Amino acid sequence: MSKVDVFLDHTAEWLRGGDADSNIVVSSRIRLARNIEGYPFIQRLKDDDRKEIIRLVSEALQKISQTRDLYYLQKADMSDLDLLFLVERHLISREHAAEQAEKAVAISPNEVMSMMVLEEDHLRIQAFQSGFQLMETWRIINQIDAELQKRMQFSFDPVLGYLTACPTNVGTGMRASCMLHLPSLVLTKQVHKVLQALSKLNLAARGLYGEGTQATGNFFQISNQMTLGQPEEEMIDNLVSVIRQIIEHEKEAQVYLKEQKQQKFLDQVWRALGTLKSARIISSVEAMQLLSLTQLGIQTGVIQSQISRQDLFALFLLIQPAHLQKLAGKPLSSAERDLYRADLVRERLRKLSL
Amino acid sequence: MSKVDVFLDHTAEWLRGGDADSNIVVSSRIRLARNIEGYPFIQRLKDDDRKEIIRLVSEALQKISQTRDLYYLQKADMSDLDLLFLVERHLISREHAAEQAEKAVAISPNEVMSMMVLEEDHLRIQAFQSGFQLMETWRIINQIDAELQKRMQFSFDPVLGYLTACPTNVGTGMRASCMLHLPSLVLTKQVHKVLQALSKLNLAARGLYGEGTQATGNFFQISNQMTLGQPEEEMIDNLVSVIRQIIEHEKEAQVYLKEQKQQKFLDQVWRALGTLKSARIISSVEAMQLLSLTQLGIQTGVIQSQISRQDLFALFLLIQPAHLQKLAGKPLSSAERDLYRADLVRERLRKLSL
Repeated sequence: MSKVDVFLDHTAEWLRGGDADSNIVVSSRIRLARNIEGYPFIQRLKDDDRKEIIRLVSEALQKISQTRDLYYLQKADMSDLDLLFLVERHLISREHAAEQAEKAVAISPNEVMSMMVLEEDHLRIQAFQSGFQLMETWRIINQIDAELQKRMQFSFDPVLGYLTACPTNVGTGMRASCMLHLPSLVLTKQVHKVLQALSKLNLAARGLYGEGTQATGNFFQISNQMTLGQPEEEMIDNLVSVIRQIIEHEKEAQVYLKEQKQQKFLDQVWRALGTLKSARIISSVEAMQLLSLTQLGIQTGVIQSQISRQDLFALFLLIQPAHLQKLAGKPLSSAERDLYRADLVRERLRKLSL
Repeated sequence: MSKVDVFLDHTAEWLRGGDADSNIVVSSRIRLARNIEGYPFIQRLKDDDRKEIIRLVSEALQKISQTRDLYYLQKADMSDLDLLFLVERHLISREHAAEQAEKAVAISPNEVMSMMVLEEDHLRIQAFQSGFQLMETWRIINQIDAELQKRMQFSFDPVLGYLTACPTNVGTGMRASCMLHLPSLVLTKQVHKVLQALSKLNLAARGLYGEGTQATGNFFQISNQMTLGQPEEEMIDNLVSVIRQIIEHEKEAQVYLKEQKQQKFLDQVWRALGTLKSARIISSVEAMQLLSLTQLGIQTGVIQSQISRQDLFALFLLIQPAHLQKLAGKPLSSAERDLYRADLVRERLRKLSL
């Protein structure tokens, strides 16, 4: 059994749901890029420096009450499958997974925090919350950052701010983002218009797994593009107010679908659920899309169900390749996964009386 | 209520099923083209002649014990919807439905016989049987033809045989056909190869509603192309032996799908049923295709069901546009039909515990 398997059997904090709009804003995330003073940036970092940085971060985290109980995973602890599993849970980035040199990650048991050591920067501090909780997420991460700074010196320039390996992160080193589920804007073909407007506001829209990934399952990650020139709270305020507007657009599109396109909407939603309950072979892309429509059906009351938000959103996670293989307890080829995924979805939906 | 509505509530003989292969050879049909001596062919027929022919045929049919109880429908008895309804039941041709001049049709209560008066020829005698029963169909129609000839003189040339309005029917005036349901040959992409070979054997393959229609729902009508140069029994023997081979091809394709493509096959079949049970909008083409796959699933034992062959094949008929409007008791637009069809299919499948 792998060390990371502990996360398979419990539910990530960000899946929990909570606030009224947590079907639309699924989760909030903030990461801070930090580098330790006195060491070169990652490109010129020697192997010994890498080990030293891992040790320094680990020691510092263990001295802070909020991060004392983090699971600490080093490169040797994680197989390729483990790494993919952590990517699927958004606990590490694809880049961190691909890194071949020494690296580490420290994750809190409830997955509220994840510290990537030796990703693009020496340290990437991440905090997650369920639903639309950017300010709370900021409060959590800011506190950890402050505690860490009592114990170690981060590279900082009085004019520029925090220094980072890539100039796009200089300043606050912060990327705040929300994961939005926007099936109605996709169905009404408005999503591109809405997302295109973001770049003018210095915001970026990405797919489910960040930069360069596709928007599968109608999930979109909205984040600040600029890290410089504004205090963190202002950046977050800006992001919050834009996301509030997107929530309203999605809600309006929901009403439009329900009222103006009623029969077509019912048809799309029920066919999606019908296919999930029937298919014997299903790809992750198709399953995500159909789960997204099923979720929209439940959210809008078209499909009557007592299923919890957590149980349904957990399915989006469980059907991913590494999660499937962890559940199966063995490696599965792509074709085998499509069979196993279909079985899993049918089984879960039956258990959830859907 | 229209006179034709009597057929809505009872089941056509050819739906009944019976022999082992009646899932593949759904029905057998033979029609004879006959013209009454002393009258010109239809192209030059005057209105008075038309009325006279209708009278002559009607009187003759009423004197024959086997045709005494036919429903006799004249042009004035049938709305456009009625005509389409009869086309959907294969009781009249599209050409006969479109005919604007005086015309008539006489149909037996169990739909074993249908006499089109003033279609392309003065009289088109038709007999239907369920399953693969071409010889029995021939026996029935030959007897009626003989009885009619005791009472009226058909245009006949000692060398050419029966004379017909179109030279392609001269000789026997016979077209024998079977309706084949070949989903496995379609799924395995072999159907075109199989059907292409038919033309070399002087046989033709057509869609569900005859000449120029599409093969919806994986139904194909196989018939003799030539009407001249052979006695009827030889033509039928030829057709029977070719259809026997097609049955074997379809069965081999079924085994291949079940054994070699098992998971893909299960997926296709269950998705088809799942969609039928979920859709709120469905076109007749899609419904036919999905019913075809569902039928194949039941036939191969993939879907366990006690549903009768008759109940399932009846659905193929009930979802057609005129049948839907008869069931609804009102005219329905194309969009309304797609809704009503989806409701009907879900309702019926639920009642049939599918």
